[in-house]
Amino acid sequence: MTSLRFIFSFLLISFSAFAQKDYKLWLQYDKITNPEVFQQYNSAIEGIVSMGSSPTSKISLSELESALRNMMGDKKIEIKSRIEGGNNIIIGSKLSLNSDAQKVVASDFGKINDEGFIIKSVLLKNKQQIIITGNNDVAVLYGVYSFLRLLQTNKPITNLSIVDSPKINIRILNHWDNLDRTIERGYAGFSLWNWQKLPDFVDQRYIDYARANASIGINGTVLTNVNANALILTPQYLEKVEALANVFRPYGIKVYLTARFSAPIEIGGLKTADPKDVTVANWWKDKAKEIYKKIPDFGGFLVKANSEGQPGPQNYGRDHVDGANMLADAVAPFGGVIMWRAFVYSEHDANDRAKQAYAEFQPYDGKFKDNVIVQVKNGAIDFQPREPFHPLFGAMPKTPLMMEFQITQEYLGFSTHLVYLPKLFQEVLESDTYQKGKGTTVAKVIDGSFNPHKLTGIAGVANIGNDINWTGHPFAQANWYGFGRLAWNPYLDSESIADEWLRCTFSNNENFIKPVKEMMIQSREAVVNYMTPLGLHHIMDTGHHYGPGPWVSNLSRPEWNPTYYHKADKNGIGFDRSKTGTNATAQYALEAAKIFDNPETCPEQDLLWFHHVSWDFKLKNGQTLWNGLALKYQEGVNQVQEMQNTWNNMDKYIDKDRFKEVQMLLEIQYKEANWWRDACLLYFQQYSGKELPVGVEKPTQTLEYFKSLKFPYAPGN
Amino acid sequence: MTSLRFIFSFLLISFSAFAQKDYKLWLQYDKITNPEVFQQYNSAIEGIVSMGSSPTSKISLSELESALRNMMGDKKIEIKSRIEGGNNIIIGSKLSLNSDAQKVVASDFGKINDEGFIIKSVLLKNKQQIIITGNNDVAVLYGVYSFLRLLQTNKPITNLSIVDSPKINIRILNHWDNLDRTIERGYAGFSLWNWQKLPDFVDQRYIDYARANASIGINGTVLTNVNANALILTPQYLEKVEALANVFRPYGIKVYLTARFSAPIEIGGLKTADPKDVTVANWWKDKAKEIYKKIPDFGGFLVKANSEGQPGPQNYGRDHVDGANMLADAVAPFGGVIMWRAFVYSEHDANDRAKQAYAEFQPYDGKFKDNVIVQVKNGAIDFQPREPFHPLFGAMPKTPLMMEFQITQEYLGFSTHLVYLPKLFQEVLESDTYQKGKGTTVAKVIDGSFNPHKLTGIAGVANIGNDINWTGHPFAQANWYGFGRLAWNPYLDSESIADEWLRCTFSNNENFIKPVKEMMIQSREAVVNYMTPLGLHHIMDTGHHYGPGPWVSNLSRPEWNPTYYHKADKNGIGFDRSKTGTNATAQYALEAAKIFDNPETCPEQDLLWFHHVSWDFKLKNGQTLWNGLALKYQEGVNQVQEMQNTWNNMDKYIDKDRFKEVQMLLEIQYKEANWWRDACLLYFQQYSGKELPVGVEKPTQTLEYFKSLKFPYAPGN
Repeated sequence: MTSLRFIFSFLLISFSAFAQKDYKLWLQYDKITNPEVFQQYNSAIEGIVSMGSSPTSKISLSELESALRNMMGDKKIEIKSRIEGGNNIIIGSKLSLNSDAQKVVASDFGKINDEGFIIKSVLLKNKQQIIITGNNDVAVLYGVYSFLRLLQTNKPITNLSIVDSPKINIRILNHWDNLDRTIERGYAGFSLWNWQKLPDFVDQRYIDYARANASIGINGTVLTNVNANALILTPQYLEKVEALANVFRPYGIKVYLTARFSAPIEIGGLKTADPKDVTVANWWKDKAKEIYKKIPDFGGFLVKANSEGQPGPQNYGRDHVDGANMLADAVAPFGGVIMWRAFVYSEHDANDRAKQAYAEFQPYDGKFKDNVIVQVKNGAIDFQPREPFHPLFGAMPKTPLMMEFQITQEYLGFSTHLVYLPKLFQEVLESDTYQKGKGTTVAKVIDGSFNPHKLTGIAGVANIGNDINWTGHPFAQANWYGFGRLAWNPYLDSESIADEWLRCTFSNNENFIKPVKEMMIQSREAVVNYMTPLGLHHIMDTGHHYGPGPWVSNLSRPEWNPTYYHKADKNGIGFDRSKTGTNATAQYALEAAKIFDNPETCPEQDLLWFHHVSWDFKLKNGQTLWNGLALKYQEGVNQVQEMQNTWNNMDKYIDKDRFKEVQMLLEIQYKEANWWRDACLLYFQQYSGKELPVGVEKPTQTLEYFKSLKFPYAPGN
Repeated sequence: MTSLRFIFSFLLISFSAFAQKDYKLWLQYDKITNPEVFQQYNSAIEGIVSMGSSPTSKISLSELESALRNMMGDKKIEIKSRIEGGNNIIIGSKLSLNSDAQKVVASDFGKINDEGFIIKSVLLKNKQQIIITGNNDVAVLYGVYSFLRLLQTNKPITNLSIVDSPKINIRILNHWDNLDRTIERGYAGFSLWNWQKLPDFVDQRYIDYARANASIGINGTVLTNVNANALILTPQYLEKVEALANVFRPYGIKVYLTARFSAPIEIGGLKTADPKDVTVANWWKDKAKEIYKKIPDFGGFLVKANSEGQPGPQNYGRDHVDGANMLADAVAPFGGVIMWRAFVYSEHDANDRAKQAYAEFQPYDGKFKDNVIVQVKNGAIDFQPREPFHPLFGAMPKTPLMMEFQITQEYLGFSTHLVYLPKLFQEVLESDTYQKGKGTTVAKVIDGSFNPHKLTGIAGVANIGNDINWTGHPFAQANWYGFGRLAWNPYLDSESIADEWLRCTFSNNENFIKPVKEMMIQSREAVVNYMTPLGLHHIMDTGHHYGPGPWVSNLSRPEWNPTYYHKADKNGIGFDRSKTGTNATAQYALEAAKIFDNPETCPEQDLLWFHHVSWDFKLKNGQTLWNGLALKYQEGVNQVQEMQNTWNNMDKYIDKDRFKEVQMLLEIQYKEANWWRDACLLYFQQYSGKELPVGVEKPTQTLEYFKSLKFPYAPGN
């Protein structure tokens, strides 16, 4: 009956409305309702002086103009080409500013890099002016979006002096999009890229995609799946890629592609793809030349090689360095980059899967060409609700390493669960590798603070599809947004990002912001609790990873089985990666290894990641492991219920469409959190042989029932 | 460079706009701009009196209210429960009207059927009132949409006296949607049905889908592909189907499913699906009971059996009657219907494919249970740009036959080509079968005018996907709309439908309506000309049917090969289906057969459908066949160019987003029309051995080039 009730209330309120708010992401540009704020903005913004005439300059102007028109209630704002009249916003790159304007910001240019911007309140022609500038037009565009964010969040703009530069060069989305428009691990519909209608049909979504990304500083996009298809490199597809590159260019976004290592065979007609074979190397050089002729600012290639069945240099007895450097030579003349993934593990390697990437890549440190950057997932397994940071971070000082986060929620409830990922990202970025002593955080490794590199980078596996709201769950938009903000500045606080996003997306009302921000922050720990508390990992159901499957043990590759990861038995549970086990801890710097190695000092949140402990192991709160585990599962369920309670009071602050959507989704999340708790506890109880502690709800179904559930058409698989 | 130019102009005009008009279909409810019309409506509509409180009544009221609010510029319209005050619109079903209101429309109720409505201007309480009523709430909703259409098209509403009833009972969309959300022959993105999030998440699109359909009188939807998957009949999916049924019900839309004939084996655990087996029959009876418990108004099953690899009764030595009647018994107790498709042909049957459906089904006339309706495609092959009407129409007088049209453009340029299909539908509906003498049109066969049946029906294979604009091409919305209008009344003129649709969707400006309506009308003949003129058919490329492939002759089944259909050789071209050939003409009534049988009397548009004629055959215009064929291809290209010229002048009348979209799509259509002409003429020229006549442009590529084109990821395949 629950679903019926929802349907009818939904019907009556909104059946004639159009879900346009959903589509606009954090660029709602709602009318400013606070009268004092409005008054301040009204007097500060009387005109726009636009200096510059490039396509990017025109975008800056149009964005500013249309945003102001919306936020200021159709106020007439004069567009000028010279500084005159009242209080203006002056936009233009360093070279296009006139000399008066240049002079007043001259000293600030020393504080920004190529992509950084300056927003400064100055007195010019006896009027208060706000100058937004940077070294080039894209930097100015970033400044414009940053300025608009001040307005969207109702910040004062009377005495601005902002200089801000991105700390990481390559801030990029990875689309695991296939040429048939399915998306591997996509939960928001299907691929935005309509290859059939490209190049001649330019969908408005491509433009809005570019806008959204530019607004948070994302400057690159890999259009295709890392499980790659060589056809994307054929002329037929390259002209389609070119059309997208043309759309994205004025927004400062470079296009990259995935390179299938066997492409020289599959589309080149060669007999081999051996990276040491001259015909192969030449084929890639010619291919690069062909691409750069169409797309002069093509970013480069992302490569998944010799991993999960993908071809690679090892097929020819070569190694990752040989493969990456061969491709690096092909794109180097054009300024291209090779992003080579370190996500490797082999079913023929009896070694702990968590150790294999480090074991294979660490010895390559310093051997890659300088236009290669190695892309490392945040943890050593695979985008779990929680993983300790990947041991490679800090362990390859002579090699630029880029972070790979997963924005799409493969293991975190698809687009149905509200999980605020910047909290997870922040935890990883703040993790201390100790590789150069205390304070060698992951963020400092990847932004080059410790070992400066020409290349720095951060990638997010996109959660974007052709759903009207882009991301399936309205709150999943925050994960795209937050990824972009952290890519720009990995030291930002995820709570501030949530605050910003909520204001831009929903409302500035404090009665809304405070509780909903708390809900978002709590959401990450909630999903850990109801899925994989205390360091458990990879116990999702087979293949599609939808729902619990701790019992799965029949997959062809041992390290794909949940039982491989939790190792529950009569004696206890957890994967012993300490000295007494696989000694994975030894891949970390000594100080970190010491902490992880001892179950007493190991953070309890990572306990079962690093240790196999008895069901009676005493947790810090005095509970036995079994009771503590069960209570954690229950806590996760309770947290989702709290999220529901919070949300149910928010109807008065926001539009009914999005309110209802989130309400329905939280109801599903609550159901599924219960499912996770019941299925996992029933399964583990077989080994612990213990009763559920007081406070944990009794399962309403049997273990057999949960094991019988099948999802042959779960999305993204 | 063309595409670059487009991109940039596109960028500058609309990058901050949101494509919301695209989404709203023909329910734009734009503000009335004509002052006289506005004045008239303003005084005629001062309030709404709503009688009735069902969910459907509430929808009628809300739709009316919000539409009026938009069209009348936020005019305050009072909602009342009694007739009082000024000039009102009174809505309510026969029983819910008060006695005063009932009295003034009493005589009109005799003129409508269950789904018909009355819209009447009357004097009540000394005021001009407009009563919208019908026998039930859904009929009233139809009346409301019809009334709103008067307003949308700026028609006078001062002296209304409209009675209108649908002429066909079952007006239904067939969605060829798979459970993984791919759509067979879908070119507008992917399936609307998000099975993963159902039943608990009710997407706003489901509601808007129901609205759009109700607004044109569609009263049924088959959710799943005719190439069926038995899983849809499992409890896990049925609860999702139930959720959709709950959304659609108040809009008067019944849900139907496709029944995979082997479901008793696949999900029922039986050893057979033999329709004469009692356990099988009982399994279906139980399944029907289970479905109707969840969905009391479930419509029934659509079945594709023993066709293109689908299982069916013939697997057990039974026939279509056995299969259909067994299922009919299962749903009969609940008022359910079986729609049994006649689209059958066998690779083991050496007979002309065009003859097989008739040969198999005609002898079954009168043998089906009375809740079975046989669904027949409009032509004997498969949804070609032009086919003569299917010989079964009129040939099974004792059996209700329903029409199956294809709204999705499988063979007509996907969602890239602008082709106005109601013109095609009208041609079929007006075709004279002569089965009961002159005037026995197809329309009169299917609406039961000649042989009254309890069941009458018309199905359209949907062109709807999750693209923001629903149908991929803005003008493909007209095909959905037009199908609905013709399903309601198969005697409507396609030109009037185009007029109506353009006004509701774009503008009432005559300078826009006249040329664009002409463009739409011309578009159907254009596609015939540049793809398959003079009766050619099924010469599209393999599998995906994208682009020309007259050379294809290597498919496993002979009747899937284009060469099977055109039979071009040194002597001529065309499929001889006359007495001297396969004698398919004999399947028509004598008068029709006579016309088709003689190449001199056969309509030239069907010439090569029925006859193999020499390259020198003299056409009515004096041209040889070869020259005439080549000139027809050229004419098609020229017609697309004219469409472009027309459209390029329309920018001042409509929004820039849709203008640009259509402009880009017409550019693609023009390119592809050229591709069709060049590829086909180069290919056929090998046989004719003749030069292209004056007036036909020279091909710019070789035949080998056209043959080399491959589209491995063409959508919808």
